Order: sequence, then C-alpha cells, then structure tokens
Amino acid sequence: MQYDYDLLVIGGGSGGLAASKEAAALGAKVAVCDYVTPSPKGTTWGLGGTCVNVGCIPKKLMHQACLLGLAVEDAKSFGWKLPDEKTHDWETMVNNVQDYISGLNFRYRTELRTKKVDYLNALAVFVDEHTVELTDRKGNVSRKTAENFIVATGGRPKYLGIPNEMELCITSDDLFSLSSPPGKTLVVGASYVALECAGFLRGLNYDTTVMMRSIPLRGFDQQCAEMICSYMEEEGTKFIRGCIPAKIEKAESGKIKVFWKPTNGGDTMESDEYDTVMLAIGRYALTEQCGVQNAGIKTDPSSKKIIGTGTGVGLTEQSNVDHIYAIGDVLHGYPELTPVAIQAGILLARRIFGASSKAMDYEKVPTAVFTPVEYGCVGLSEEDAIARHGEENIEVYHQSFKPLELTVPGRGDNAGYLKVIVDKKDNERVLGMHYLGWGAGEIMQGFAIALKLRATKEDLDELVGIHPTSAELFTTLKVTKSSGLDFRQAGC
Amino acid sequence: MQYDYDLLVIGGGSGGLAASKEAAALGAKVAVCDYVTPSPKGTTWGLGGTCVNVGCIPKKLMHQACLLGLAVEDAKSFGWKLPDEKTHDWETMVNNVQDYISGLNFRYRTELRTKKVDYLNALAVFVDEHTVELTDRKGNVSRKTAENFIVATGGRPKYLGIPNEMELCITSDDLFSLSSPPGKTLVVGASYVALECAGFLRGLNYDTTVMMRSIPLRGFDQQCAEMICSYMEEEGTKFIRGCIPAKIEKAESGKIKVFWKPTNGGDTMESDEYDTVMLAIGRYALTEQCGVQNAGIKTDPSSKKIIGTGTGVGLTEQSNVDHIYAIGDVLHGYPELTPVAIQAGILLARRIFGASSKAMDYEKVPTAVFTPVEYGCVGLSEEDAIARHGEENIEVYHQSFKPLELTVPGRGDNAGYLKVIVDKKDNERVLGMHYLGWGAGEIMQGFAIALKLRATKEDLDELVGIHPTSAELFTTLKVTKSSGLDFRQAGC
Repeated sequence: MQYDYDLLVIGGGSGGLAASKEAAALGAKVAVCDYVTPSPKGTTWGLGGTCVNVGCIPKKLMHQACLLGLAVEDAKSFGWKLPDEKTHDWETMVNNVQDYISGLNFRYRTELRTKKVDYLNALAVFVDEHTVELTDRKGNVSRKTAENFIVATGGRPKYLGIPNEMELCITSDDLFSLSSPPGKTLVVGASYVALECAGFLRGLNYDTTVMMRSIPLRGFDQQCAEMICSYMEEEGTKFIRGCIPAKIEKAESGKIKVFWKPTNGGDTMESDEYDTVMLAIGRYALTEQCGVQNAGIKTDPSSKKIIGTGTGVGLTEQSNVDHIYAIGDVLHGYPELTPVAIQAGILLARRIFGASSKAMDYEKVPTAVFTPVEYGCVGLSEEDAIARHGEENIEVYHQSFKPLELTVPGRGDNAGYLKVIVDKKDNERVLGMHYLGWGAGEIMQGFAIALKLRATKEDLDELVGIHPTSAELFTTLKVTKSSGLDFRQAGC
Repeated sequence: MQYDYDLLVIGGGSGGLAASKEAAALGAKVAVCDYVTPSPKGTTWGLGGTCVNVGCIPKKLMHQACLLGLAVEDAKSFGWKLPDEKTHDWETMVNNVQDYISGLNFRYRTELRTKKVDYLNALAVFVDEHTVELTDRKGNVSRKTAENFIVATGGRPKYLGIPNEMELCITSDDLFSLSSPPGKTLVVGASYVALECAGFLRGLNYDTTVMMRSIPLRGFDQQCAEMICSYMEEEGTKFIRGCIPAKIEKAESGKIKVFWKPTNGGDTMESDEYDTVMLAIGRYALTEQCGVQNAGIKTDPSSKKIIGTGTGVGLTEQSNVDHIYAIGDVLHGYPELTPVAIQAGILLARRIFGASSKAMDYEKVPTAVFTPVEYGCVGLSEEDAIARHGEENIEVYHQSFKPLELTVPGRGDNAGYLKVIVDKKDNERVLGMHYLGWGAGEIMQGFAIALKLRATKEDLDELVGIHPTSAELFTTLKVTKSSGLDFRQAGC
C-alpha cells in the first residue's frame, strides 16, 4: 500500500507544527492541514493555532499593555514628568498586536516550506483510518492518504446554549482582533481565559464585570485563586458570583441586555446592559469536526477528547487506532498548554520515525496565569496535596510581600504571596510551589526544575538568593501555616 | 571571666544584622556596633550597611526608574497616548528612594530592639581579642567585652590615589543621595557598580561615559560582559577603554576637568570636562579600620580581608583567633553579595551557639547585574569552564532572542541571550547558566537550584516551558557553539 504521506498532521497549531517539522527533519514525507472555521462573529486567522492567534500571544501582549499602563503611573514617583491623566487607544493596540501576529503567521508558512512540510490550507475530515477528505476555502474537495496521522486540532470556545448568544456575544476567538473598543464588558466564566481577559480590559480602563457560576480557576490552588480575585476587585473588576446568564437580548439602547439568575435555584432575575459580552466558559475539543468517528477513534464521552492507550511507540499519545495519534488539547486527561503540545509532538514524531524511544513526562508541568497580577505554579495545589497525602502529612511554608519595585510608587501592599507545600513524611520534599506577583511566569520556570529533581525544603533554604529580587523569597521561607504565625513580610 | 556580651557583632549591614538577630533568638546576649564614617564628600547614612543604603536597594530602584522610562516609550506602541517627549526629575527620584531607605533604617532599629539585640551606634576598634573601644558620634569613648566577635564591617569604595580626587569625585557612597542632578558624568571603573550606575544614569538621559582600564566585569563570563557593553553603547553610554585618569582638576568653567592616558604606556594625554566624576574602581575591606591587628587576626596581604581557617565550629568563617569570626565582604575568598553574608551569618550564629552544625555552601551562588539590560548567572563562566574542564570537554548551548514584550515596541532585536555550559564527560551536566535580558535576576533564581541539584542538559530539555516567557527558552536550547550554527531565535 502506497500512501501520499508518511505522516499527515491535522491542525497547524503549536503541537501540530512542532510534530510535522520534527518528522520532516527525520526524513518523513509530511503534510500539515490547517483550516480555521470562522467564529460565529466571522473572525478567522492564519497558521499557528490558538496560542499564536487567539491565545497566549495576544493575551500576553494585551497583559503587557495593561502592565505598561501601571508602569506609566509608577514612573511618576520615580521622577518621570508625565501628564496626570492618560487615555488608551484600543485600535492602536489591536493593530500593532495583529501586525505582530501576521508576521508570525508568515514565518510559520515559510518555515514549513523550508523544512519541506506540505501545508494544506483545508479542512481535513477522516473518511477512513488512512484517508482524509480536504475542503479548501473555495469549496474544492480532494483526498489524501497517509500511513500515520496526528490529530492536533485543538479546541474552540463553548457557548451557553441560549438564544441570541452567537449574534450578540463574542469569545476569545474575537476579542484580540476586535476592531472597536469593547466598552463596558461582561465576561462570563471563571477560567483563566475569563480572568485574564477581564484583567487586562480593566487595566485598559474598561468597566469590566466577571460573572462566574462557581469557583474561580477550578483545578488551581484555591487560596491563590481567591487572592487573584481580590486583587482584581481592588483594581476595579466587578464580580457577580454564583450566577449564569439566563437570557441575552439586544436592548433598545443598542447595547446588549443580559439577564442572569443564581445557580442555586433562586428565582430573582437581575439584568444589566453591556457594550460587549464575552463568553469564556470553557472550550470543546475539535474531534467530531475532523471525523474521528469515521476512523474508529475512541473519544471520552464527556470531554470528547481522544483517549490515549499507552501501548506501542505512541505511548500516551496513541489512540486505539495504532497509527493515529493525538497531541495537545484533543488528548484526554492532560494539561491544555502550548509547551506541553510542542514537547509531546516533538517526542512523538521521534518515536514514530524511530529516532528515540523517549516519552513525554506530563507530570509537574509548570504554568502561569496573567490577570494582570501574575500567578505561577508547579506541582500540587494545597487541596490536591491534602487529598493525596493527608492534611497531617503536609506542611505549607508561606509569606506575603510587597515587591521592591512597588515600594516607591506606594502601591501593592501584599501584592505578592508565595507558598511551598512539602511532604512531612518524605524529608519535606516539595510537592507544590505557588507564586503570586510580578514576573510569576519567569520566576516559576526555573523553580519548576526543583520539583523535577525532587528538591526538599532544605535545598530551597540552602539556595543563595539573588538580591534584590522577589524570587529570592523562595530561599528564606520560614513561617508555616500550621504555626498560625503572621506570614506578612518582616524584613528586606 | 565575665564578658559584657556573649557575642559582639561589628557592623550592622545585612550579614551583621542577620547574625546578631539569630544569635539573640538562640538566647545569647548580643550587641551590634554600627557606625558610618562619612565619605570624603560628607555623605553618611543609617543602620543597614552598604546594600540597603548605598548599594543593592537604591541601585535597583534607580534601575527601575530607568526601566520605567523605557516602559513609558513602549506604552505608546501598546496604545497609551502620552507626550512625545518626557523629562526626568532627579530630586523627586532621590527623595522618594531616600524616604524608602529611611523607613528601612527605622525598621532595622526597631527589629533589633524587639529581638533584644543592643544597638551601639559607635565605631568599634579592637583593643585586644576580647575588647573593643567604642567611639560615638559625639566623641565619647567606652569599652565593651565579649566572648565571641563577628567582624562584618564590609567595605568602602577605593580612590585612585591622585590629587584632588576626594574633593572633586564622588563614589557610589554619594551618588544615590546626590541632591542635584549629576549632569554630564564620567564613571571610572569596569566593575558591576560602575556599569550599573552608568547604565541607569544614561537611562535617565544623562550624558554618560565609562572609562575602564582593562576588561569589563572581571570574573564574569566575558562574552556576556561584552554583550552588556554593546547594549549600553547602543543606548548611548560612551566607553573609553584602556585608559585611566591621570589628573583631575577644577576647570575654569566650574566643571571637573579629567585628563587621562592609555594604560599601555602611550603618552597621548586626552581630557574632557564633566559635571560629575564617579569612581567605581573597586572596594577595600574595613579590617585595619576596626583594629583587627590589635586582636591578632590574620588578613590576606593583598585583599586585607580576614582569612578563614576552616577549623572548629566557625568553619569557613572562623579567623585564626578562635572566637573571632568574619562574614560578608571582609571574609577573604568569597563572593561579596548580600544574601551570601546573610546566610553565612545565620548559619554561623547557629553553630556558635550550638543550634546546628550546618555550614555555608559558598559554591554555585547565583548573581545578577542590572546595567540596565539585566544579566543573571550561576555556576561557571565559559572561561572558567574551559580552564577547569578543558575546551574539548565542554559544550555550550546558546541562543539569542527578542523578548515578546519588545516585539510590539520594535526595540531590542537580540536584546536577550542565554547560554548553558555543560560537561560533555559527565552526561552533559550543567556547569554554568547565563541569561541576558529582562528579568534576569528573577529568572536565574530558580534555575540556580538546577546546579545545586546537579541537573543535566536533558533535565532542562525535559522541563516543560511556561509560555510565553523568556525563561522558557532554557528548556528548548538546541544550537551548540561547536556546531557554529546561527544562534539567533528561529521560532516562537
């Protein structure tokens, strides 16, 4: 049997691109199919997937816009003469961010060409387990066969399932390229996408409200999650908790009128009008959309994600159909994070083409949230540490602090907080590290290796600090939660 | 024999304060003597030592002032509407920085009281090995005895030894509280103090020149040191290399006229006039000044620092006189860094008073330089790695990059650079890590533990990145120096 390709990758996001380039470098004949179905609002984008186009990259840049707004205020106390008031121009930011993204899209296309990966800008749907049907932008249909497939189609934002929402609401697919300022905005959801977008919108001076059904940042350490919400509230973000939108309609004013009610079954319906309503209530995996059922690929009934079987060279990423693999946000049970998809994709390509037997380690993956207070963590949340080890077997070292950079501007008392969770029964081995404050993503990256290398609290204590930084506080944590002592900073 | 104190600490800097508080917490009767001899320009300061008053803290805050100046420019490309031109007010910055420092001075005094450490604001000079003579600000003289002593007097800036310099030049002892703007400034020296001060002065719009005799940042990785100089030059700092001031005099204009000549013996004398001349040519240890000779304490003939003998509970910090110890910048052969002095002081106090036998580990101490491009490192420089392991036995992985935050403003192409030096004969064990770019101090803090825990390159590769950060690049380094391949960034 002759196939068109040794490997066909469905989805040109971070994971798919990494896997396809690695496979091609190993001599395989590779194609990557990428096609963006326009959002209900009509937004579409180029090669590179969610992270580059409607995720991490524009999010981080708009987060940076928000931080720079704070920096301009701070600058005054450091002697810079600037006007009392400042305004923000949404269009300038969006245009500059989108220009940068267009450059990335172009670079990805060029790279595929350089690395001899065929780029098929068409929607790929499995016909059988070795064939996909491709439909391009103009409606032209063709078929391609391959010996191996990697499904890396990622996900798209969910909707609530109520009338008018597709016409009246936007999602993160639309926000980053919104051509006019969002104005008064309601963000529905409690995910990091919801909080991050609300955070930078508020930082850019928009009246911003977050409506959440239940707890913020499910799966993250809840003490830190609540600290994030408190910080956001101090910065002016409003929160409506325990509620979901019941009805959305166009108001006479031209605004969007949202009616909501409590999730606990109460009947009191409240409402308000907004210029923009953004849904960030979760994402669904694009598996049915690429016809996994036609290839006999098993998915999880709830998440609709592809189940990895853990047998053969594919290991974790191999589906029940031996030559079909999944990486990134369509693989059931693993973190939905760009670097996870990239690393899994590279290692998988090496295994498929015999260059290595090394498997991806999905454990102890660090991550960060930018809301705009930054939060970085690696390892277990306090809740998970208690659940796995028992409350009596863990200890928590913690401290709040004010970063040196905020002392002169006189803002952010206790803007920083860190905690280290250790296993008392295993020589105070570190189970989880959490950091809330400026530079959290940058700071946690290095400490993440401490968990991989099974560091103990003593290893952290022996580490010499870099002064003056915020990160150095991890080397001098003394106060335990069990002691009940004051955990506020007490010294330079 | 009854002594006034169980422990008398000479010097109320970071190390001395940490040691004295720890000893008092262990039940010892402790005093700390601190007295700041005014600089030749008459500058003096409060409790806390160099770091807090005329070192790390004001330096980092003025570095931050400089970064915020850049941030204001960046903010425009992110949509903030701000004036084209901006000016900086030196006095506002200095006053706000000094206010913050005064608060720290006050807090340190309060802490000593709370922790029952006697604070003696007087110059202490050894009379014999158990006695010091104290002279206070008013000239009152008294004596105190103690069973143990810790010498933690630190150091002060060196002068060139040429006429007029004390009247006409300032040092870092004076810069951070300078009451009027420095104007056109010559910084003499190539130490991190020289480059850091020049860097922020330039960032605050002053005409700034660095004159260095020889190489920049001796002891640091020279590739990174030269990159720092290039970056500073791009930002407008001028460099005069291979020269030293030969003559300094008051010009008719009222400015300071500096004549210099090449160190290679050439005769061509050049000159220019400056508003401010700052000497940053190194520091000397305050050992003779506290009469170590009267107590029979041995010092290194060259550094004048106290030699640790490495016997008894004092271990590294114990002088030839058993009950007299040294920590921080007066201890011969170890890094002059605040966190080193603090950690050594705490561990030493515990050993002296029997609470622990744990010794300070002076190896693999991370550090950072802020010029204003930030540079952080831990472990060996490339030169030291070659010297210790042989060029054929090491490999260098490296990459230059542009931080995401700088893409939209369009500045800083290749503003970032990182390298990891590994031992090819030991499973690519990491020997040194170097990072040039935004947040270097924060980023290197965590990675420093990788060296302590003997990480290999493979451990770094297996670490999952936090996206999008700059620190994540340490997890994906591929290009080796030996390959000669392009090390510029090629992908998101």
